[in-house]
Amino acid sequence: MRKISLVITARSSYTKYKTILDNLINKKNIKIDIVCSGSALIDKFGKVEDEIIKDGFKIGKKINFILDNDEDDRPGKELSMAIFNFSEYFKEQKPDMVTVMADRYEILAPTISAAFLNIPIVHIQGGELSGNIDEKVRHAVTKLSNIHFPATTKSMQNIIQMGENKKNIFKTGCPSIDIAKRTIKNKKKLSFDIYKKYGGVGSFPNIENGYIIVMQHPVTDENKRSGKQIIETLKAVSKINKPVIWFWPNVDIGTDGISTNLRIFREKTKSKNFHFIKNMNPYDFLELVYFSNGIIGNSSCAIRECSFLGIPAVNIGTRQNNRERGPNVIDVGHDHKEIYKAFNKITSKKINKSIIYGDGNAGKRIADKLEKVILVSTKKFISL
Amino acid sequence: MRKISLVITARSSYTKYKTILDNLINKKNIKIDIVCSGSALIDKFGKVEDEIIKDGFKIGKKINFILDNDEDDRPGKELSMAIFNFSEYFKEQKPDMVTVMADRYEILAPTISAAFLNIPIVHIQGGELSGNIDEKVRHAVTKLSNIHFPATTKSMQNIIQMGENKKNIFKTGCPSIDIAKRTIKNKKKLSFDIYKKYGGVGSFPNIENGYIIVMQHPVTDENKRSGKQIIETLKAVSKINKPVIWFWPNVDIGTDGISTNLRIFREKTKSKNFHFIKNMNPYDFLELVYFSNGIIGNSSCAIRECSFLGIPAVNIGTRQNNRERGPNVIDVGHDHKEIYKAFNKITSKKINKSIIYGDGNAGKRIADKLEKVILVSTKKFISL
Amino acid sequence: MRKISLVITARSSYTKYKTILDNLINKKNIKIDIVCSGSALIDKFGKVEDEIIKDGFKIGKKINFILDNDEDDRPGKELSMAIFNFSEYFKEQKPDMVTVMADRYEILAPTISAAFLNIPIVHIQGGELSGNIDEKVRHAVTKLSNIHFPATTKSMQNIIQMGENKKNIFKTGCPSIDIAKRTIKNKKKLSFDIYKKYGGVGSFPNIENGYIIVMQHPVTDENKRSGKQIIETLKAVSKINKPVIWFWPNVDIGTDGISTNLRIFREKTKSKNFHFIKNMNPYDFLELVYFSNGIIGNSSCAIRECSFLGIPAVNIGTRQNNRERGPNVIDVGHDHKEIYKAFNKITSKKINKSIIYGDGNAGKRIADKLEKVILVSTKKFISL
Amino acid sequence: MRKISLVITARSSYTKYKTILDNLINKKNIKIDIVCSGSALIDKFGKVEDEIIKDGFKIGKKINFILDNDEDDRPGKELSMAIFNFSEYFKEQKPDMVTVMADRYEILAPTISAAFLNIPIVHIQGGELSGNIDEKVRHAVTKLSNIHFPATTKSMQNIIQMGENKKNIFKTGCPSIDIAKRTIKNKKKLSFDIYKKYGGVGSFPNIENGYIIVMQHPVTDENKRSGKQIIETLKAVSKINKPVIWFWPNVDIGTDGISTNLRIFREKTKSKNFHFIKNMNPYDFLELVYFSNGIIGNSSCAIRECSFLGIPAVNIGTRQNNRERGPNVIDVGHDHKEIYKAFNKITSKKINKSIIYGDGNAGKRIADKLEKVILVSTKKFISL
Repeated sequence: MRKISLVITARSSYTKYKTILDNLINKKNIKIDIVCSGSALIDKFGKVEDEIIKDGFKIGKKINFILDNDEDDRPGKELSMAIFNFSEYFKEQKPDMVTVMADRYEILAPTISAAFLNIPIVHIQGGELSGNIDEKVRHAVTKLSNIHFPATTKSMQNIIQMGENKKNIFKTGCPSIDIAKRTIKNKKKLSFDIYKKYGGVGSFPNIENGYIIVMQHPVTDENKRSGKQIIETLKAVSKINKPVIWFWPNVDIGTDGISTNLRIFREKTKSKNFHFIKNMNPYDFLELVYFSNGIIGNSSCAIRECSFLGIPAVNIGTRQNNRERGPNVIDVGHDHKEIYKAFNKITSKKINKSIIYGDGNAGKRIADKLEKVILVSTKKFISL
Repeated sequence: MRKISLVITARSSYTKYKTILDNLINKKNIKIDIVCSGSALIDKFGKVEDEIIKDGFKIGKKINFILDNDEDDRPGKELSMAIFNFSEYFKEQKPDMVTVMADRYEILAPTISAAFLNIPIVHIQGGELSGNIDEKVRHAVTKLSNIHFPATTKSMQNIIQMGENKKNIFKTGCPSIDIAKRTIKNKKKLSFDIYKKYGGVGSFPNIENGYIIVMQHPVTDENKRSGKQIIETLKAVSKINKPVIWFWPNVDIGTDGISTNLRIFREKTKSKNFHFIKNMNPYDFLELVYFSNGIIGNSSCAIRECSFLGIPAVNIGTRQNNRERGPNVIDVGHDHKEIYKAFNKITSKKINKSIIYGDGNAGKRIADKLEKVILVSTKKFISL
Repeated sequence: MRKISLVITARSSYTKYKTILDNLINKKNIKIDIVCSGSALIDKFGKVEDEIIKDGFKIGKKINFILDNDEDDRPGKELSMAIFNFSEYFKEQKPDMVTVMADRYEILAPTISAAFLNIPIVHIQGGELSGNIDEKVRHAVTKLSNIHFPATTKSMQNIIQMGENKKNIFKTGCPSIDIAKRTIKNKKKLSFDIYKKYGGVGSFPNIENGYIIVMQHPVTDENKRSGKQIIETLKAVSKINKPVIWFWPNVDIGTDGISTNLRIFREKTKSKNFHFIKNMNPYDFLELVYFSNGIIGNSSCAIRECSFLGIPAVNIGTRQNNRERGPNVIDVGHDHKEIYKAFNKITSKKINKSIIYGDGNAGKRIADKLEKVILVSTKKFISL
Repeated sequence: MRKISLVITARSSYTKYKTILDNLINKKNIKIDIVCSGSALIDKFGKVEDEIIKDGFKIGKKINFILDNDEDDRPGKELSMAIFNFSEYFKEQKPDMVTVMADRYEILAPTISAAFLNIPIVHIQGGELSGNIDEKVRHAVTKLSNIHFPATTKSMQNIIQMGENKKNIFKTGCPSIDIAKRTIKNKKKLSFDIYKKYGGVGSFPNIENGYIIVMQHPVTDENKRSGKQIIETLKAVSKINKPVIWFWPNVDIGTDGISTNLRIFREKTKSKNFHFIKNMNPYDFLELVYFSNGIIGNSSCAIRECSFLGIPAVNIGTRQNNRERGPNVIDVGHDHKEIYKAFNKITSKKINKSIIYGDGNAGKRIADKLEKVILVSTKKFISL
C-alpha cells in the first residue's frame, strides 16, 4: 500500500493533476491524500477546492498561507507559513511520497518540508526553461526532488544535465494536453453559454462569429511594472476589432497593479467588446480557447495546450521566456504596437499542430509510474 | 557603495567568513551587514556571536530559529521561522547582495528570502558533492543563487554542469584553508593549555606526547541511529591507547542521541584518556589538529583543512560522502573494528600535503570579487 | 527621555490617536515610535499608513499580519503572526512604554508581546462594555495592562472593579470626541464634494437636501450570518426615501458575506439613492455625519461621536451591546421592519447633546499623562 | 456527546488533570481529546507525554513550541507558534469545550485560539493571586474564559469581582490535593528508593533519618537575577546539616542562570549532602514531600499540597506572592540568612493541616461539571 500526498496549490496545478487522479483513483494499492493549498482555497481565485470535491475526490488537508498585502516580502512569508504547516502535516501523516507540480513559488514549501523528513519527492514538469523567479524555483525543486516526470524531451535533457540520475527520470508528456485532447473530442462549437454560466462583468459581446482571449498574469520580479504592462496590452487589444474574453490575473505579487487598471479601463471606456471573467472550469476554458481566433497575454496555455490545439498565440513579455514553442506562437515585448502587429501576423496563416508537450496520455503514464516507481529519498550527483 | 548582508549561521560558517571579513572591512565602497543566526547565537554551541563582536565586527541583526525538541519536523519548522525573519529583514534593509556559506540546511532560509526579493545571492562553496540532505540543500542553493565561489576545480565544473553561467562562477579556494595556513605559521608546538583555556569535562590526560581528536556530528537523515553510531566510535577510540580530545556534536537533529551516549560513556567508564570539549576558537582548533596524531569522526575539517595540513584522518560514515579527498583520508563505515584498523593504517605512513581545497588566499579573492562582481538577480539555464 | 511605542492597527485607532500625537509631538522628553500594523497598511482599507505620513508623523515599524482567507482560524493565526513581530520589535527597540487602543482583536498582539518583555502597557479606552469577542479582548487587555485611560466614568468604575489599582487609572474622555469637536467648529455645511473627493461606486444622488449614512461591520462571532444581516439592513434602508452614503465593511471575519451582498444589491437594483464608499478621512467622515439626517448600522461612531454631535442613530444588532448611550440612539435587531420604524422615530424628535464620552480635550490629557505617569510593569490585584 | 479538548502543557498541569481524567474516562457521553504541548513533550523536562500514555490516555495532538534560546522575546514567540497550531487544531477538531489549567504563560495560546473560534473555555484554578507575569496571565485568561473552576473561596470571590457571572463559577478545590490525599493513604514511610528509581547526579546521602527538599524555579520578570537568587538558596541550604533532594528548575526564561549555578556548585563543592534530580512522577514526589522535614524554594507545592499535608515550607521570593497560605509557610526574600533562619523556625513547631486548597475530591467535582455544565461562549460583564 503506497500513500501519496498530492499537493494542489492553484487552478493551474489542479488542471494538470486531473487525469493523474482519474487514473490513480482505481488503483487498489494506492492511497490518495490530496493537500489543497494556497490560492486553490480562495474564493476570488475560483476556489478550486470546491471543484476537487465536486469531481469526487476527498481533500485530506487544507493549508492556507495567502497573505493580504502587497509588500515585497509577501512570497517569502507565505512560504514560511506554508512550510510550517506542510512540515507538521507530512510528519504526522508519513506519506510514502509527495508530488509537486511545475514551478509556482509555493511548491518550494511542500518540497522542502518533505525533503527534511526524508520523504521521496516526485516533481512533475521539471526541467523546463523560463524567465524570472520561476526559473530559480523550478530547478531548485529539481535538485530537492528524487523522481522526475518532465513533459518534453528537452526538459528531460535539462534534468539529466543538472546531475539527476536517469533511472529516476521519466518523460511523460504534460497532463494538460490530456485535458485538451479530451475536451475538444467530438466538439464542433462552444458547448456552453459563457455569459450564462460564468457571469462576469463588462459588456456582453456576441462571440458567435469569433473572439479572442486575453490572459495576462503579473511577473513576480517585475511586479512594480504590472500596471504599465497591462495598459499596453489593453491598448493593443482595443484596436483589434473583435469580442474579447479577458481573464482576471492570478494572485502573484503585482496582481493589484493589473486588476486596478482593468477596472479603470472597464469603467472608463465601457467598451462594447470587452467581457471580464474571473475563473473557469478548465474544460470549458480549453473549449473556449479551441474555438477562439487566438490568445494574447502570458499564459502558459498559449504555449502548451495551444501548440497541441493549433491556436494562434501572441506571447507578451518574459513570463514564458525560454519555454519550448510550437509553430503557433509569436513573442513580443510590452509594446502595444508590437502586440497588435504580431496578432495580425499569426492569425493570418495556417498553424500546424504539434505534440512537443504531449500526446494526451500523460496522466495515465504518471499514475502508473507513481504506483510502481522505486522510491528513493537520497541523492547522488551524476557527473556527465 | 555596495551593501552586503553576510549570513553566519554556525561556528563552521564563521570560520570560513573570517578572512573574507578581514579583507572586506577596509574596502571603502563596501558596507558590511552581518546577520548572525541559528546556532551561532546559542550558548551551548559556543555562541559565535560573542566571538564575532570580539573580532571587531558589528552584528546588524540576530535571527533566532532553533527549536527545542527532537521531532522530525524540527528542521522544516526552523526554516519556516528563519524565512519569516530573513524575508522581513532583507525587505527593510534592501542589501545589494546576500552571501550564504556552504550547505547547512538553514542557509535555504536567507537564500529563498533573498531570491523572492530579487536580491543577488552569492553562494560560497557550492558545487561540492556529499551524501544526505546536504546534497539536496547545496545544489538547490546553487540553483537559487546568482554568483558562485566554489572552492575546487571539480565543484566549479559541477556548477557549470547544473546550467549556471560561467561568467558568474569564480573558483577561489576554501577560506578555511586561509585560517589553517595563518594559524600554523611559525608554530612549533601547541601554544595554549587546552585544559586551562577550555575547561571541559572528563579526564585530563597529558597530551604532550601525542593525542587524537574526535569530532562526530549527527547525520540528519540517519538521526535515529546517531546513538548506535557514536557507540561504535567510542569502542574503537577506547582501544587506541592515546589521549583523546573529543568534541560535542553540533545542533543538527539526532544530536541528543550522541550527547546522551557520550555522557553515559563518560560517567560509566571514567576513562583516563578521554577529555570532552564543547567548542573552541577556530584558530586554536586548527593548531590542535595540526599537532595531533590524527583525527577521527565525520568532520569536514578532516577532509579539507587536514588535506592542506597533512594530518591523518579516519572519516566515518556517509556525512562526507563524495567530497574530494587528499591523500590523508581513509573512509570507513560505522564499525568499531574498521575504525580502529583504519586509524592504525593511516597513521603508519607519511602524508603528502595537498592544495585541492585552496592555497590560503581564498578570503582575499572572495572579498575582491564581492567588491567588483557585476550584480545579477535573474538567471538563464545554460545548456551544455 | 521617554520612548513610547504607539500601536495603530486600523483607521479607527488612528482617528483616536490623532489628537494624542498632536499633543505629544512637541514634548521634548518624549520619543514617539509609531507602529503601523494590520488593516492600517492595506490598500482596500484605505491605507491609513499614507495618512499618518501625510500628517507629518514618522512610522517606526510596519507589521503586516492580515491573511487572505475566510477560515475560522484566521484571527488566531493573524494574532500568531503579529505576536511574533511585535515581540521581536519591542525586544530590539526597548520602548519605555507601549500604548494600545480600545478593543479590536489584534491589540492582544502588542499587549501580550509587551507584557512578556516587562514593558509597561497603557490601555486607552478600556473598561467599556459591549457584546461578542470584543468584550473578551478588551477586559483581557485590561488585565494585561498597567496604566488605564478610560473614556467614561462607568468604564473607569469597571476597571477598578476588575482589581486594577486606582493610582494607575485616569479618566480622560475619548479622543474621538476631540476630533468631532475640532471638525465641526465653524462649519455651516459640508465643506467638500464627496463624489469628487472620494469617488466610490453606485449612483450619485444629490445630497444637498439631506442624506443618511450606513456603516455596518461584521460581528466576529456571528460571521456566518453577516450576509443575512446586511440584507435586512438593505431592505430597511431601501424603504427610506433619502440619499444613502453607504460604507464598505472593515476587515473582520465575515466581511465577505457583507461585501458580496452589497455588490449583488448594487448590480441588481441599480438604485438611484445608493452610493458606496470605501473609506474616508476621519475629519471628512465626521463632517458627513454632522450634516446627515442620521446614521444606521453598528458603528461605534453612532454611539460615541454622535452623542456629542447630537445625531440620530439606529444601532443594529449586538456589536455595540452594553456600551453607554446618549439620548441619540435607538437599538434594534436584524429585522428590516424594526430598523425602518426606529429610524422614523429617532429622526422625528429633537436630540440633546451629551458629553458622556468626553468634552473634546482627551488627547491633551492623555499626552500629558504619557509624559509624566509613573511607569510600572508589575501588577497587584486590589480586592474591593 | 460532548467533546472536550484538555490542554496539558507541563508536568504541573498534568498532575492536576490526573484525577479529572480518571473521573472523565468512564463517562459515556464525553469524548476526551488530550492536547499535549510545550514542556510536556520534552525529554529534559521529564516528557510527561510518556506518562500520559502509560496512564492509559490517548494523546489527540502534540503541539511543540519551545524555542532554544535565552532571548527576552522567547515567551512571546513561543506563544506565537502555539497560537498558530492551537487555532488550526481547534478549527479542524471543533471541540465543544476547551479546558486550560492555572496560570503558566503558554495557556494564553489555547485560550486565545478557542476564544476566536467561539469555543467555550473552561479555566481551572483561576482567581488566585500571585506576583509577576503569572498574575497578568491568570486574570487575562479569566476574562477570556466562560466557565471557571476556582480552587478556593477567595479565588472564587476574585473571579466574581472581575465581572464574571456567578452562574458560570464553581468552587471545586484543587485537584492537586486529590493526588496528595490519594498518595499518602496508608503510607508509613517512603515506598521507593529514590536513587534507584530516579538516578540523578551529585552525592547519594542516606535519607532514612530525614531530609529536605529544594525546588526553585526562575521568575520570568526577574530572569536576569535567577543566578544570583539560586546562589543565596545554595548558601542557606548548605548550612542546614541534612540530606537535600534538589530538583532542577522548569523551562521558564531564566532557567539557564539556575542550572548553570547548580552545576558549578555541584562540581566545586562535591557536598556529601546534595542530590540533584530532574523530574519525578507526581505521586512519588508527594510521598517524598510527605516524609520530608520541610521544603524550601518557590514551588507552588509548598503552598498548596503542603498546607493539606502539614509540611513546613520556606517560600523564597516573589513567585508565590499573594497566594493564600495555610499555617505551614514562612515567606522570605532572596537572602541566605533569612532562608536559614526561617527554616529553623518553621521546622521547630507543630503544623496544623488545612483544607483551604481542597478536600481531595476536586477531580470528581470538575469531571461532573464538565459533563453537565451549560455551555456558553459569549460574555457579559456583571457590575457589582
